[in-house]
Amino acid sequence: MKAAKFYKAKDFRMEEVSAPAVKPGHAVVNVEWIGICGSDIHEYVAGPLNAVPGTIMGHEFSGVVAEVGEGVTNVKVGDRVACINLDVCGECKYCKAGQRNLCAKMGIDGYGLLGFTADGAFAEQVLLEAENCIKIPETLSLEHAAMVEPGAVTLHAVNKSRLTEGKTAAVFGAGPIGLLLVIMAKAKKASQIIVIDVAEDRLEMAKKLGATTVINPMKENAVESIKELTDGGVDVAFEAAGVQPTFSAATKCLAKNGELMIVALYEKEVSLFPLDLTMGEAIISNSFCYSEEFPEVIDIYASNIVDLDLLITKKIMLDDLVEEGFETNLNDKTHIKILVTPKQSNL
Amino acid sequence: MKAAKFYKAKDFRMEEVSAPAVKPGHAVVNVEWIGICGSDIHEYVAGPLNAVPGTIMGHEFSGVVAEVGEGVTNVKVGDRVACINLDVCGECKYCKAGQRNLCAKMGIDGYGLLGFTADGAFAEQVLLEAENCIKIPETLSLEHAAMVEPGAVTLHAVNKSRLTEGKTAAVFGAGPIGLLLVIMAKAKKASQIIVIDVAEDRLEMAKKLGATTVINPMKENAVESIKELTDGGVDVAFEAAGVQPTFSAATKCLAKNGELMIVALYEKEVSLFPLDLTMGEAIISNSFCYSEEFPEVIDIYASNIVDLDLLITKKIMLDDLVEEGFETNLNDKTHIKILVTPKQSNL
Repeated sequence: MKAAKFYKAKDFRMEEVSAPAVKPGHAVVNVEWIGICGSDIHEYVAGPLNAVPGTIMGHEFSGVVAEVGEGVTNVKVGDRVACINLDVCGECKYCKAGQRNLCAKMGIDGYGLLGFTADGAFAEQVLLEAENCIKIPETLSLEHAAMVEPGAVTLHAVNKSRLTEGKTAAVFGAGPIGLLLVIMAKAKKASQIIVIDVAEDRLEMAKKLGATTVINPMKENAVESIKELTDGGVDVAFEAAGVQPTFSAATKCLAKNGELMIVALYEKEVSLFPLDLTMGEAIISNSFCYSEEFPEVIDIYASNIVDLDLLITKKIMLDDLVEEGFETNLNDKTHIKILVTPKQSNL
Repeated sequence: MKAAKFYKAKDFRMEEVSAPAVKPGHAVVNVEWIGICGSDIHEYVAGPLNAVPGTIMGHEFSGVVAEVGEGVTNVKVGDRVACINLDVCGECKYCKAGQRNLCAKMGIDGYGLLGFTADGAFAEQVLLEAENCIKIPETLSLEHAAMVEPGAVTLHAVNKSRLTEGKTAAVFGAGPIGLLLVIMAKAKKASQIIVIDVAEDRLEMAKKLGATTVINPMKENAVESIKELTDGGVDVAFEAAGVQPTFSAATKCLAKNGELMIVALYEKEVSLFPLDLTMGEAIISNSFCYSEEFPEVIDIYASNIVDLDLLITKKIMLDDLVEEGFETNLNDKTHIKILVTPKQSNL
């Protein structure tokens, strides 16, 4: 089969590899759609960072079950599935407590990291633990199913946070993760969803997806505007940008009992003035990957809460991954989610 | 009556002032013992910072009710009381939710800040809202009752934190607040209480008060030692020092799902590497003052959980507040709590 293997920055190679053989407890999935994640682009630009050279990348994907191994009962051949890319031990206290993402043995398919089946989905087929195949309803398209994984990352952050119905939310950074946070905050019936970004086209998109107010900090003081909108401070600020200016603003716009929920993966140290938080007993929380959120994301997507097609700005063939995928994403910041398929008939 | 008024750094003046007149809903208390707080010393050294010039300072105190105003039912003349120094509106959502410390109208007696009766207790008598007078049992001495206020600050932090029976705690900084945190962690039956400080005499004191291990970071790597002691990371790290080295160490020694609880009031920005927390989904929390913890502190103190006399390193007359109190505290770091009394018969 064809597969896109990552070797180093700017070095993805389309290779002919053996199709994966099924194993007990596993399923072989015919890949339908794969999203390009920001972390994939990061590896393409500056890797290897976390990915192991020689790995088939791609971890946001959907497909149809082609074959199941011995003992598999949760899916059968022909099932349409959204795919989890985290492999865990299932035995430790974190796995048992529903915190798979904290399992010390967690492996990540699509990065070659530790996992039992460490290859990802920029290929025609992928081998997965069967429990990582989550059946989707007929009402959910396979394109949208490929966005369940990043949706789970954002729903995990929202579910961990203090955001509940009627509370106010701010989202710093309107990239793919920020925009999905808007959708999840809308699903949780936040009373306000304020989105902060310097790119006007992303702010426009945020509005279409549920933002109640958008703020461009090049044009106005974001902290003052948020405080004014929220009668003194926002209940939960989600940080999906990962840089000093957004971090600082997020710590200064919080309500008493407020929460800064970090979703971004920071590359550098930031400066924090703890007293900004102390008097209001605000907290800084962190969210990492996801755990058991796939079914809830599928429900939210299937509820047609927003037009998810808005997020998909391009669909390309796997053969064109580098030029039409990575390079386009790098050179044209108006793109949100570029979906990739190995099947010509999908386009 | 005699009272010590604060004017500016190094300028406390013993003055003859009118005794306070009782008001409806209030009580006049004959002051028995007043503790010198780190923040009092801060004002003495570098004030006015938060204190209003001309205020009678002193906010950690006990006394005996001398007079009650109209409508007062919770205390009567002769009652021995520990005294709350926070005045709140009682009407806002924070007051109603048991978060008096977040009330926007909170006043602080002993600083002259906003409060209804803003003078403090470095005097023979003090006027208080009657509800701020908390009766103590016969088994609790008035000396120990003067330490209920700082005890409430630390119990508030512990009660807000994720520290429960069987969890592990680290306390950074073994000053008066750090040592009281040790007592409160012991009261909550923490399985380990690890105390980190550079002063050997304070570490010795921490051991006497319940620390299970003490670490001098001048002699060993605190982060590595804590991780080794706690099988990978501590559940809750209390930061009672308020400086970069302790903040950094506290962010790097946490277990997954761990918590850094900030109790110190930071004067400067600190550098934070969010990724130290992200993978383990650890949080940074903040605790400010106290709210409704006085009765529980009184119970803990009255239970003789530790010998509280260990904390009292000197007792002095109010007349000697500056020389024997502030100057001694500044020049001799072995002191923990210096108690002050306006009554010669107490010594």
